[in-house]
Amino acid sequence: MRDTAENAQLALLLEVSGTPKPGNVDRHREYDDLRFEHFMAGAVGSLPGIRQAVDGPSIGVAFERAVAGMSAQSGGNTQFGALLMIIPLVRAAATDRLTPDGVAAIINETTVEDACAFYRAFEHVDVAVEEPPDGMDALDVRRGGDAVEAVRTQNVTLSDIMELSADRDGVAAEWTTGFERSFTAAGWLLADRGPIYERASRAFLRLLASEPDTFIVTRNSEAVAVEATRRAQAVLDGAEDPNELGDEFVARDINPGTTADITAAALFIALERGLEV
Amino acid sequence: MRDTAENAQLALLLEVSGTPKPGNVDRHREYDDLRFEHFMAGAVGSLPGIRQAVDGPSIGVAFERAVAGMSAQSGGNTQFGALLMIIPLVRAAATDRLTPDGVAAIINETTVEDACAFYRAFEHVDVAVEEPPDGMDALDVRRGGDAVEAVRTQNVTLSDIMELSADRDGVAAEWTTGFERSFTAAGWLLADRGPIYERASRAFLRLLASEPDTFIVTRNSEAVAVEATRRAQAVLDGAEDPNELGDEFVARDINPGTTADITAAALFIALERGLEV
Repeated sequence: MRDTAENAQLALLLEVSGTPKPGNVDRHREYDDLRFEHFMAGAVGSLPGIRQAVDGPSIGVAFERAVAGMSAQSGGNTQFGALLMIIPLVRAAATDRLTPDGVAAIINETTVEDACAFYRAFEHVDVAVEEPPDGMDALDVRRGGDAVEAVRTQNVTLSDIMELSADRDGVAAEWTTGFERSFTAAGWLLADRGPIYERASRAFLRLLASEPDTFIVTRNSEAVAVEATRRAQAVLDGAEDPNELGDEFVARDINPGTTADITAAALFIALERGLEV
Repeated sequence: MRDTAENAQLALLLEVSGTPKPGNVDRHREYDDLRFEHFMAGAVGSLPGIRQAVDGPSIGVAFERAVAGMSAQSGGNTQFGALLMIIPLVRAAATDRLTPDGVAAIINETTVEDACAFYRAFEHVDVAVEEPPDGMDALDVRRGGDAVEAVRTQNVTLSDIMELSADRDGVAAEWTTGFERSFTAAGWLLADRGPIYERASRAFLRLLASEPDTFIVTRNSEAVAVEATRRAQAVLDGAEDPNELGDEFVARDINPGTTADITAAALFIALERGLEV
């Protein structure tokens, strides 16, 4: 009965409802200035942009609209990365192409104008990002709309932008690999049993254990990201308590945000493939 | 930036995110078969009906549509009562009448067809309700659409139906009093400080302490409802721990659902009046 856009909104809500997800905001843990309620408002505000991904002209414009709506709350960046994952997947689902090849085709179709909209999206909210590669200062996403002229001059598409970032950003990496990890984790969610909030937690931990989180690399360090991966595996092995680890990660400001973004994408794919709530 | 329908959806999400709310599903407590995730899906599914309350022809039809969408999850009744509160308030807000007099006027305008849609809404989900008053078996809401003929024959409007139930149902009582308690609690939320989830918890406790919850009367007993009122006051007085009380209420299946519905209505009014998230 839910349509594709509603499944996408629900995926955002189920992602933040999953618990325990050490280091992320979830039902039981939050930061003083980034609270669970900000994610609720972010999911509400995202829907009009998500709807544009179903039937609008451009996934870049849909993404910018989703981010603008998501940002209409005082917590700051709640779901920028999750929306960057979900928007092309929504377009794929809406056009009966929700497969790795299908979403790869959608990404290949992105244009320079999609890239311009992507840059404008950064004007709505502060997003923690890496320094741009050498020689790429003109395309630094932190320039927001000011980079649009360079985007047009250099004739780069949104797909090109993602390829430039794929080695340093786990969301961009998904864009260049047909959302491989997202589809894999969707399979885990569907094969798993029990309440969704537990399945989402387990999928999150498996993703985190399998690859260092690039958001941690950006905000903390490579070493901390590797530690987070090791300790997520320890939770899966029963050697570490996820709630204690969550308290510690929040205290140390270690937030595996990219892994959460991929979990949101996986939840969306799973909902589209019949995950019952 | 959020519009009226989005504020209504957010109110549903903030209500269930408020914690601690002893006996209710919240972020930290849930029942095995009625979980937090069901409320997320219920809020997602409610939106198309809420939108019809903004610009559709009939608040009864809007309510039925909202309930149908809300019910598209496996937990059963999550927000029937909250929607019955919020739908006329949304219409009031959308027509610049979000005051006790304004919503009373909207309720006076309800028709026999609104009543028929209200009865049909009961076909989408099981709702715990009281026995109908003596001689009113034909209008028993549990008959669902089968009661529609009696509704038409007896020429009763949705406002009439609510008046018949006002002494036994706290939601119906709000319909007959210009949503007095909802507007009062909205004032508390706006005057309060701190995260919304704490404000929602405090408003919930003040409402529960001020009047026995009719959902508890229906599902448990009058005596248990009086006890819940007394113990909510004890929490407010610092004499009882809300989390321990929450565990006890869940174990005893004491769910102050009507108080939660009024809290949701109060959150909607407060959002419309500028409560910042």
